[in-house]
Amino acid sequence: MRTAVLFSGGKDSSLSALMLSKYFEVELLTFTFGLSENWRSAERSAKRLGLPHKKIDFGSGVIEEATDMMIKDAFPRNGLNLVHKKALEIVANRRFVSTSAKAYKIISDGTRRDDISPHLTLAEVRSLEDRYGVCYVRPLLGFGRKLIDELAGRFFIVLEGENLPKRADYEGEIRCYMRENYDEETVEKIFPSRHVHSRVLGLKGGKYV
Amino acid sequence: MRTAVLFSGGKDSSLSALMLSKYFEVELLTFTFGLSENWRSAERSAKRLGLPHKKIDFGSGVIEEATDMMIKDAFPRNGLNLVHKKALEIVANRRFVSTSAKAYKIISDGTRRDDISPHLTLAEVRSLEDRYGVCYVRPLLGFGRKLIDELAGRFFIVLEGENLPKRADYEGEIRCYMRENYDEETVEKIFPSRHVHSRVLGLKGGKYV
Repeated sequence: MRTAVLFSGGKDSSLSALMLSKYFEVELLTFTFGLSENWRSAERSAKRLGLPHKKIDFGSGVIEEATDMMIKDAFPRNGLNLVHKKALEIVANRRFVSTSAKAYKIISDGTRRDDISPHLTLAEVRSLEDRYGVCYVRPLLGFGRKLIDELAGRFFIVLEGENLPKRADYEGEIRCYMRENYDEETVEKIFPSRHVHSRVLGLKGGKYV
Repeated sequence: MRTAVLFSGGKDSSLSALMLSKYFEVELLTFTFGLSENWRSAERSAKRLGLPHKKIDFGSGVIEEATDMMIKDAFPRNGLNLVHKKALEIVANRRFVSTSAKAYKIISDGTRRDDISPHLTLAEVRSLEDRYGVCYVRPLLGFGRKLIDELAGRFFIVLEGENLPKRADYEGEIRCYMRENYDEETVEKIFPSRHVHSRVLGLKGGKYV
């Protein structure tokens, strides 16, 4: 079954993809707002995982709407949820592919149990599945941080740190957009820099299960 | 890492166990209130999955407390949650093992995304992990019914039906207890018989990933 995994190159989406690749035909998709070439770092991670990868453009309006929401709220949760839901809908709706391409039966991501955002409610999940006729699966939803770190450490060579450069997650480009359209103070208020991010650099030993 | 999976012999706990067995050292545990030998059907399923199995007794008081709750509520959800939490606590606390046995690092079950009960809240999950120093993982929490049916159908020979005899889940013995202490009408009110259950009879082709 053709399966799309929303992929940032971090350890969560990498682990989710590896787990699913044991059961389904996985393709990794990295979204960009078109403000940077950061998606290329996810492309490199995908290559090292040995899984096919595509870049997808959000199209116009999404980053503006999400940023407005974050600034109004003074926290990023709802804005990040909006961006993630748009990404899932674009993939589910195949708006980025030619009509001849086979549709994805399954869409997925690296959402963990302890993630505050992005995180769809059960009602939002069912609505997504019903509207587009897909299965939305989150293999890490029942896993806490400790076990995810254990498994990621077993399978991946991981780089971790605060504000890793060239990150291919949504936050990287949103920070860049905020910096240009608002100021550094706004960026720091919305996205405190103590948050730790990760990038998967490769597979340990070449064998992961 | 030594991992206990609460196991009824149904397709959910079987799939959960098989997924985890790719990463951890899995043991299947079936609880009984001591009212029947139904746990033996789970023992048979475990044998066919090729995974080690133990029967564990709830001890006294649990079925009485749960049944009282179900009758007071006129629905089974809170009572089933109480029973499941007790089972998880017994396993996490190793009350059934000799002090020389190694503790379980991970405890798990077959809870799915669409399950109404048993289902622990995030706060209950964290409380369980903090109190006992274990990881509680639910590999199917991010999976909907359709994908679970797809995977179970791929790997298992499954028997499905309403009110399967000798079921080793909590409901089987609670129905039996209610029938003896109340009446058939009460049983039917609390557990409508249209609910479909499953039992794993074996692995398809002997190879599951």
